[in-house]
Amino acid sequence: MLGNLLLSEGAALLLVFFISLIYRENDGIYFIFTSLLCFAVGFAGFFFGRNAPMSVGKREGSLVVTSAWIIFSLFGALPFWISQSIPSFTDAFFETISGFTTTGASILNNIEELSHSMLFWRSLTHWMGGLGIIVISLALLPLFGTSGTQLFAAETSGPTKDKIHPKISETAKRLFLIYFMLTFTETILLRLGGMTWFDAVCHSFATIATGGFSTKQSNILYWNSPYIQYVIIIFMILAGVNFSLYYFGLKNKLEKIRQNEELRYYLIVLFGFAIIVAFSMIDFSRPISFHQVEESWRNALFSVSSLMTTTGFTTVDYMQWKPFTWVILLIVMLTGASAGSTSGAIKMVRIVIVFKFCYYEFKRLIHPKAVVPVRYSGKIVYQDVVTRVLVFVLLYLIIAIFGILILCMSGVGFIESVGGLISCLGGVGPGLGMVGPIGNYSYFPVFAKWFLSFMMLLGRLELFTVLLLFTPAFWKK
Amino acid sequence: MLGNLLLSEGAALLLVFFISLIYRENDGIYFIFTSLLCFAVGFAGFFFGRNAPMSVGKREGSLVVTSAWIIFSLFGALPFWISQSIPSFTDAFFETISGFTTTGASILNNIEELSHSMLFWRSLTHWMGGLGIIVISLALLPLFGTSGTQLFAAETSGPTKDKIHPKISETAKRLFLIYFMLTFTETILLRLGGMTWFDAVCHSFATIATGGFSTKQSNILYWNSPYIQYVIIIFMILAGVNFSLYYFGLKNKLEKIRQNEELRYYLIVLFGFAIIVAFSMIDFSRPISFHQVEESWRNALFSVSSLMTTTGFTTVDYMQWKPFTWVILLIVMLTGASAGSTSGAIKMVRIVIVFKFCYYEFKRLIHPKAVVPVRYSGKIVYQDVVTRVLVFVLLYLIIAIFGILILCMSGVGFIESVGGLISCLGGVGPGLGMVGPIGNYSYFPVFAKWFLSFMMLLGRLELFTVLLLFTPAFWKK
Repeated sequence: MLGNLLLSEGAALLLVFFISLIYRENDGIYFIFTSLLCFAVGFAGFFFGRNAPMSVGKREGSLVVTSAWIIFSLFGALPFWISQSIPSFTDAFFETISGFTTTGASILNNIEELSHSMLFWRSLTHWMGGLGIIVISLALLPLFGTSGTQLFAAETSGPTKDKIHPKISETAKRLFLIYFMLTFTETILLRLGGMTWFDAVCHSFATIATGGFSTKQSNILYWNSPYIQYVIIIFMILAGVNFSLYYFGLKNKLEKIRQNEELRYYLIVLFGFAIIVAFSMIDFSRPISFHQVEESWRNALFSVSSLMTTTGFTTVDYMQWKPFTWVILLIVMLTGASAGSTSGAIKMVRIVIVFKFCYYEFKRLIHPKAVVPVRYSGKIVYQDVVTRVLVFVLLYLIIAIFGILILCMSGVGFIESVGGLISCLGGVGPGLGMVGPIGNYSYFPVFAKWFLSFMMLLGRLELFTVLLLFTPAFWKK
Repeated sequence: MLGNLLLSEGAALLLVFFISLIYRENDGIYFIFTSLLCFAVGFAGFFFGRNAPMSVGKREGSLVVTSAWIIFSLFGALPFWISQSIPSFTDAFFETISGFTTTGASILNNIEELSHSMLFWRSLTHWMGGLGIIVISLALLPLFGTSGTQLFAAETSGPTKDKIHPKISETAKRLFLIYFMLTFTETILLRLGGMTWFDAVCHSFATIATGGFSTKQSNILYWNSPYIQYVIIIFMILAGVNFSLYYFGLKNKLEKIRQNEELRYYLIVLFGFAIIVAFSMIDFSRPISFHQVEESWRNALFSVSSLMTTTGFTTVDYMQWKPFTWVILLIVMLTGASAGSTSGAIKMVRIVIVFKFCYYEFKRLIHPKAVVPVRYSGKIVYQDVVTRVLVFVLLYLIIAIFGILILCMSGVGFIESVGGLISCLGGVGPGLGMVGPIGNYSYFPVFAKWFLSFMMLLGRLELFTVLLLFTPAFWKK
């Protein structure tokens, strides 16, 4: 299986080689080299593994998925490292896993110095990672009963052993189509806004995957075009929607979309917080111009959408804003957008269930004998699903707190640890302080970079998938 | 009932009046005035309420307990306010509720300017609040099934309606004795260390109640005596132990103490973190002297014990330490010490159950059909108790996050909001930054002071008691 996956990485690298030919860049050699390496190792794995039993249970699933992300990042880091575009292997690996986990945290101080092929590969890691996570979260994770997606995606409620192949591949095909269409549409719209084809494609990759790598050091501010910013806002928000809803939309099952509570709360929280942030930026003691209101609103909406969908694009240095807006940004970095999208973090569906359950517990305190099940999108949520959601959210917060401690112990400042950890665990990108919108992670100690790489992986694969590998029970027969 | 309680506050104020006579201070007039006011209102309440039905259920319990703390603080603030010792009523109320909730957050910039009677009253609010919370948490809260104490205090597993009176008063008597003995012993030991009787009594009040008000602006550092610091460390740790364990100890049921998991983890976490913090202070590049190691260890142990038991005494400005130690201090401020003690915050028993349950969930992921109940101190914990603990911890963290947001919105800085909110919600006292060990809350905006007063109350009464009053279901027939 891993062999098969490596072949696809080899193909992607080959594509980048052709890009380098178009731009007549010498960097192509690194991509063809890595590509051939992937093919060699991939075919070897395919060949030696062809007689292995193909029963994929939870344990094998965990192992394959976690290994896949690590191996992809190891091979993917090679072009950056061999070409000395990123001289340190730690940095190259950090940048690559940040790409594949669709985080977008960067260690680059001079993005524009990289060749077109390097930049294209950087953005392509996002796009591949995003596609991978959609397929996994809507087709593989329901197997674990932890993704929350099984609550409203009955069609993909988890494959049973005997029909894993047809189901996954059928679903994957549909999802790929939706994913491709969104990317294609955004590319066209960005091109119309004045971006080059190259930048338009790279930024679409990063938006739909909710990644956040830009081809410019000054990020989206480079274009200084409200049109481009609004296009990106819209597609970031679209990328944060559960992809099965697009599928329902295509099938004209609008009722299912209307009933979906996650979508409703996702939009309420996003616009609600954006309005609060926008208000905080307007100086009411002076005459208020439309231009000023529009700019505040655009910057607020852009930042909140970008961090809530865990994309991480920036148009403004929010470290200059009032400190309470940082808390809002930290909160949306923790909540994330919808399950079954490319966004990371806790996901709205879990937040909604936690709040509902807390409210019902209060009801039960007064009427202990009343049985009040949690209802979500009109359906009853079983107690063990609720419990698992509570455990997930608690575990996420516990990991965040101890992660901040470990990051801080490695020598990173307090605000940087809080912002950087929550950002990387949620797959966002920019954090607070020195790792805020105008900073990056280059100055972090080596240990902190490896630790954050692990946090990105942990957050991207919804904790359980990775943590399972660390339990003794996993390795027992 | 509230009338009865007010009579006891009147009596306490009368005691302070006698203190003022001893020190020949004019402030006595304010205490005798407030005392008579308490008696008048108390008797009126007693008189008019004498025919009221005496069935105390959950709703009445919530209402009485919450009102008691608020009314005590309103009346208790009067001497400070009328005497102009604390000119602003907001500040006087903040200081008093900080006393009754055994928080110890202060707005005073010149503690030594207050008269003996004012200082004595300030410390006495701690002692009364601490006694009240012990009685409530071991005798009244089990009624709600939320305190966690019912897990190992079978004797006080919650009164039923018909026998609430004998049970509460019998338990209360025993607890009072233990509480008094601890205070008495510490007073003697502090006096032997060179404190005046007055300071020894005030500091014992503040230690056993895990409050943290000192009679000196420079707090415990004033004495600069390792003996006094070690005495206070020992009694802070003792005050963080579940009081029913002392009861078992007196009855010679040592097996029950040995089995108690909360005690074990409480001490492991406390000493574990203290060792880490102590290590971080030693400069290994120079020759290490015993004196230096002892001082680092004493300061580390003092600070960790002080914040974990939610006392809030200080001997050193930990804002000068490495930032990662702040994260450790924030973590222990969140965990708190044992249930059934005077300490605040989440309490170790809940933390232990959360961690155990998370671990069992992992086991269940691999073996979905295995039934693995959570065991605590050798007993099985029922699923609904576990669920309620999960909800409590989640709710606590959610309130902390949104509390930080609201505090930040009121104009307080980021680090101050994080430190101040977690500190006040947990009933600790000092926070981070400007509200760290050498600062205080005087410069906070008026709104922030009222908000933090509410947070102290919310944390002290274990969330549910207060929040229940805000649910529509509570007020329905």
